[in-house]
Amino acid sequence: MTVEKNRQILLASRPRGEPSPDNFKLVETAVPEAGPGQMLLHTVYLSLDPYMRGRMNAGASYAQPVEVGEVMEGSAVCTVVTSNLPRYMAGDIVVAGTGWQEYSLSDGEGVQRVDPALGPISYALGVLGMPGLTAYTGLLNIGKPQPGETLVVAAASGAVGSVVGQIAKVKGCRVIGIAGGEEKCRFVREELGFDGCLDHRQPNLAERLQAACPSGIDIYFENVGGAVFDAVLPLLNNFARIPVCGLIAHYNATELPAGPYRVPLLMRNILVKRLTFRGFIVFDYGSQFRDFITDMSGWLREGRVKYREDITDGLENAPRELIGLLKGENFGKKLIRVSPDPTKR
Amino acid sequence: MTVEKNRQILLASRPRGEPSPDNFKLVETAVPEAGPGQMLLHTVYLSLDPYMRGRMNAGASYAQPVEVGEVMEGSAVCTVVTSNLPRYMAGDIVVAGTGWQEYSLSDGEGVQRVDPALGPISYALGVLGMPGLTAYTGLLNIGKPQPGETLVVAAASGAVGSVVGQIAKVKGCRVIGIAGGEEKCRFVREELGFDGCLDHRQPNLAERLQAACPSGIDIYFENVGGAVFDAVLPLLNNFARIPVCGLIAHYNATELPAGPYRVPLLMRNILVKRLTFRGFIVFDYGSQFRDFITDMSGWLREGRVKYREDITDGLENAPRELIGLLKGENFGKKLIRVSPDPTKR
Repeated sequence: MTVEKNRQILLASRPRGEPSPDNFKLVETAVPEAGPGQMLLHTVYLSLDPYMRGRMNAGASYAQPVEVGEVMEGSAVCTVVTSNLPRYMAGDIVVAGTGWQEYSLSDGEGVQRVDPALGPISYALGVLGMPGLTAYTGLLNIGKPQPGETLVVAAASGAVGSVVGQIAKVKGCRVIGIAGGEEKCRFVREELGFDGCLDHRQPNLAERLQAACPSGIDIYFENVGGAVFDAVLPLLNNFARIPVCGLIAHYNATELPAGPYRVPLLMRNILVKRLTFRGFIVFDYGSQFRDFITDMSGWLREGRVKYREDITDGLENAPRELIGLLKGENFGKKLIRVSPDPTKR
Repeated sequence: MTVEKNRQILLASRPRGEPSPDNFKLVETAVPEAGPGQMLLHTVYLSLDPYMRGRMNAGASYAQPVEVGEVMEGSAVCTVVTSNLPRYMAGDIVVAGTGWQEYSLSDGEGVQRVDPALGPISYALGVLGMPGLTAYTGLLNIGKPQPGETLVVAAASGAVGSVVGQIAKVKGCRVIGIAGGEEKCRFVREELGFDGCLDHRQPNLAERLQAACPSGIDIYFENVGGAVFDAVLPLLNNFARIPVCGLIAHYNATELPAGPYRVPLLMRNILVKRLTFRGFIVFDYGSQFRDFITDMSGWLREGRVKYREDITDGLENAPRELIGLLKGENFGKKLIRVSPDPTKR
């Protein structure tokens, strides 16, 4: 193998509002060599996820930001090129927090082996990985779905939303999705088997949601915020649960929307309807990973959970695709294929 | 006993904003006679509570509103005058949802017997009654206090706040109260044993609260809303719990405060800090009443929970005192003594 250069994408500057291609910089460096206790990884699939927008801002959130000039943060499915670690050998397939680059070194920390028997190896970044675990743990631990209840989830064709809705169907819920555009909505209804899916780009979302949820809403899995949240709030039933997983509608915001100051209205709803809002981050539930893999690989096998990917070739396209992801332009779980999939050669 | 007339206070009109005396009307009617399956009650102590403001508005909340022309809703400690119910006899002392009147009929539903051995009979409307159960169930079921954690509660000298803080002390928490005026704050610190108490009428509440909570806030028992909530939010620790019990700062509001629309900021806090906001109403936890009475009467006996009442004589003063309660003019649990306490004759 003649390896000559490593391509990396750095954070060139911090965006104000929507990121632009200028905020990223593609550089070429030497491919590093694995020292003692290290292995060299070659990126196959890089995952693009909404949380990456947060890492581009200064100031700590639940994780540290990426510094300007550093490689953009991200997880990837990789092949092991060379290994000085006893647990891994060349040719192994793993998931690691490589960042946006073709080659990376790892000491094995946080690395997880990918079992190709469970499904395509790219699934380890989606339905069998972090987004799937997010859907599974947030829905089951906080949403606590009961048969006959109504669940609403937005970004319903996406990596998390699609899984939330399908698990809720497995648990006997009535499931209404929200997505951008009729093509996605049709997919959600016809392929994923949701009971309904509304296009948030069409007018009168609140009225259409009310019509689609004649018994109100018992679980709202919050991953978008914004206008969807405003439409959901009046429809929540007593004792409804709202796992708060993401707020993609606000990630590019530079200031708060105009008033009035509606927090008292939200709090009044929480009080009178005895609502539960609980935020969570997938790392809080890492201990449930094994249960998750068992359940989810079973549901995939049985055809009870279906999963769609949206793959773009070429590391150089990652900035453009992340910008698009934040505007809902992807259709399914967004991946960058950085090098050929070794299981498909 | 020569009973000639019954005095009642009716809802004369619905307030817009702060209630005024015009919204109430004192009338005299005949004292009713207990028919089959009924008993006649004579009100001793009438409880005044913030929830009553909500009942004066049109439109359903978690309970139906009082209709204009109806007797104002309320609970009272009463003596049984005559009884056609096998379980009660003349002279018994009970708590019942009598409304604001001197005499009332009851079929026994929702009535609870008062045990004078547990404390003054008026306590059945406070520390040993609904406000105490509110504090106990909200704190223990939702707040889940752990030794060494910091709890903040407002209206700290009041019927609910004072009990929340003292139970949290029993559970090993550091407790900071918020109250209106230095006299109340001194009482909260010196008599109730809170670790600190801040006067919300003085400037710079946010800065003073931060100084009083150097390790942040793990539990905020929400019973006021408004400026206190705004001061608390930035100080909440990861995994903080917020039982939402009341929002007295907003009960007289006729419109939402000016913008910006801060809901996204609140939701971001919920997400990033993995907060739990959960609304509750005391009736949700009625099954815990027996545990509550056992624990609370023990804590009272041991001097671990202290309790202050603010008693005004005369049913005719109830409207004025409710108006004052909504402005924080009471100092301790507000009661109207409608007739002499039979245990103190």
